[in-house]
Amino acid sequence: MKLIIAKENLMSAVMTVSKAVPSKTTMPILECILINAETEKIKLTANDTELGIETTVAGEIAEHGVIAVPADIFTNIVRKLPDGDVRIDTKDETVTIRCGQSRFTIQGRDGQDFTQLPEVDREYAVEITQFTLRDIINKTLFSASTNDSNKIMTGELFEVRDKTLRVIALDGHRIAIRSVELRQSYDNEKAIIPGKTLSEISKILGGDTEKTAKIYFSDKHVLFAFDETIVVSRLIDGEYFMVDQMLSKDYSTHIRIKRQDLLSSLDRSVLLVKEEDKKPIIFLITDGNLELRISSTIGSMDENLAIEKDGQDLNIGFNPKFLIDALRAIDEEEVDIYLQSSRAPAFIRDDSTYCYLVLPVNFISID
Amino acid sequence: MKLIIAKENLMSAVMTVSKAVPSKTTMPILECILINAETEKIKLTANDTELGIETTVAGEIAEHGVIAVPADIFTNIVRKLPDGDVRIDTKDETVTIRCGQSRFTIQGRDGQDFTQLPEVDREYAVEITQFTLRDIINKTLFSASTNDSNKIMTGELFEVRDKTLRVIALDGHRIAIRSVELRQSYDNEKAIIPGKTLSEISKILGGDTEKTAKIYFSDKHVLFAFDETIVVSRLIDGEYFMVDQMLSKDYSTHIRIKRQDLLSSLDRSVLLVKEEDKKPIIFLITDGNLELRISSTIGSMDENLAIEKDGQDLNIGFNPKFLIDALRAIDEEEVDIYLQSSRAPAFIRDDSTYCYLVLPVNFISID
Repeated sequence: MKLIIAKENLMSAVMTVSKAVPSKTTMPILECILINAETEKIKLTANDTELGIETTVAGEIAEHGVIAVPADIFTNIVRKLPDGDVRIDTKDETVTIRCGQSRFTIQGRDGQDFTQLPEVDREYAVEITQFTLRDIINKTLFSASTNDSNKIMTGELFEVRDKTLRVIALDGHRIAIRSVELRQSYDNEKAIIPGKTLSEISKILGGDTEKTAKIYFSDKHVLFAFDETIVVSRLIDGEYFMVDQMLSKDYSTHIRIKRQDLLSSLDRSVLLVKEEDKKPIIFLITDGNLELRISSTIGSMDENLAIEKDGQDLNIGFNPKFLIDALRAIDEEEVDIYLQSSRAPAFIRDDSTYCYLVLPVNFISID
Repeated sequence: MKLIIAKENLMSAVMTVSKAVPSKTTMPILECILINAETEKIKLTANDTELGIETTVAGEIAEHGVIAVPADIFTNIVRKLPDGDVRIDTKDETVTIRCGQSRFTIQGRDGQDFTQLPEVDREYAVEITQFTLRDIINKTLFSASTNDSNKIMTGELFEVRDKTLRVIALDGHRIAIRSVELRQSYDNEKAIIPGKTLSEISKILGGDTEKTAKIYFSDKHVLFAFDETIVVSRLIDGEYFMVDQMLSKDYSTHIRIKRQDLLSSLDRSVLLVKEEDKKPIIFLITDGNLELRISSTIGSMDENLAIEKDGQDLNIGFNPKFLIDALRAIDEEEVDIYLQSSRAPAFIRDDSTYCYLVLPVNFISID
């Protein structure tokens, strides 16, 4: 195999696929990036068997071939090469990388040993802008669980219904829901996509509002295609939680508050929270005023914020971190919070695009 | 005690002194910052008994007093407070910190328990610009040892002779020497200043070429005074190494090379160096050409760089990291390297301001 690829293009392609290289594996071939120039295109692939990424890179094929290169050292070498054309030559499994006056030789592996990406039928795609896809992931994924004991909670539900894509993440303490309107109607789809897949996709997506990403669903897999890249991921098996039953439009207290002010106060309050003793922040809601109190072994904090309020006075405790995450995921200057009682979930929501549910925490006394 | 201090000023003062708060200590009072408003000035002090920092902060004293506050939580609270006037009130050892609508209460400690900074006579100072002091530290300190087994190597020699300040750091594999001309002549001084002290000073110094830092030497201590801050440090006991005897102006090979090109090549070469097997980079010097070679279990690299050369051809091996450190500390576009043999140290030096000595590494074969 003999290839000539501009360093910048090669670097960008390597960075894209390396997101699917497992950090720990017992299969050395998975620690490799496959460089495939058997056809007229140069393709780079990485595959951790749950998640696979393939991207096409522009370049010249002087001799066809395929080789698997160790992802770690190959990425580092490419990153540090001077700008210019990178020449990659293989002789058996020895790979020579040349650029300017620099020449590296490393040991590759037989490309035939590499695990191919699963086939996903690419007939029927749901289309969404790259910006919106990234945005909807970033604004929900923090609510998914990172604890593998309940696999379904580590994923996000992607639900297509007519012209709407709804994305849901939950971890047992909170729920994040975002809906976006699509450009056209689609067949109904439901799939639980692993959080790790979505996290990696959100890092690769350029965030262009003009460019489109296509999503292909199959029984066991989902495939995202954008620019020169495809990301294939296994789906999580099982039925997702019946979230609609947990959502209620009823409330007895409604407050409207400046988002950034509340966020700053909560941000300060966590200074007093130690990992060991999870002290709640207590909201004391009265007409026109929200008092925040927290006290721990480190010290105590007390703040007052102006609010618009209707309904009853209420005292309620929260894990401040969950509120912070939700408030950071909202763009609006002001937010509406709907509450029922000190034991019922709080809803931070607008009419149709987002709903963040946070369960309250019991607290003993408010002094 | 009742104080009013603008948040920005308080933050800056806290950040300055917190450099002297020990990360681990068995004496809880040392984890505190002392706030002293017993006189007409508000002074903040931290002291890890090796290194002490004191700074004066502008503010209003409504009631005199002194208190020690836990550095960690106090710093975090001040950082996250909104902009505006911060009010610090104490009642016994309870400290209330107010700013805007926010109020924190934390537990302080009796200020009388705090370890005072050692007294250093401040009659005779060596003066240097803040920029130069920071620069000379940053360009030598990397050569000091971080291994406590030889205490003297963990410090830097500060040597004043007439109009020159010379600073030396060495770790047994390399030596860094920088000289600067002072504005006037001073009495001769010699002191071994702990590397940690110099590292913290270089972080606090603003790098202003107009502003002056004063250095006061005593038998056991050194005191740096700049802006509203003083840094007092113990000196390291003992005689420093006789470095002048190790410096030689003789050479049999001299090369002149573009600094950035050599640095980039060396930077790439370390990709192939694993912690376990410290492979040297081999210089093959011939007329007009420097070939660099390195090979390890990961792979091999080979590069050619244009040089100006006089004297004999030479093959010599180095730990690339030591060369990288030295080259990064030089500003010039081109550097001169003087060599004697494959077993004698290499000197990267100019006529009078810097000299970096690096010992060579034995290598078996060059293929």
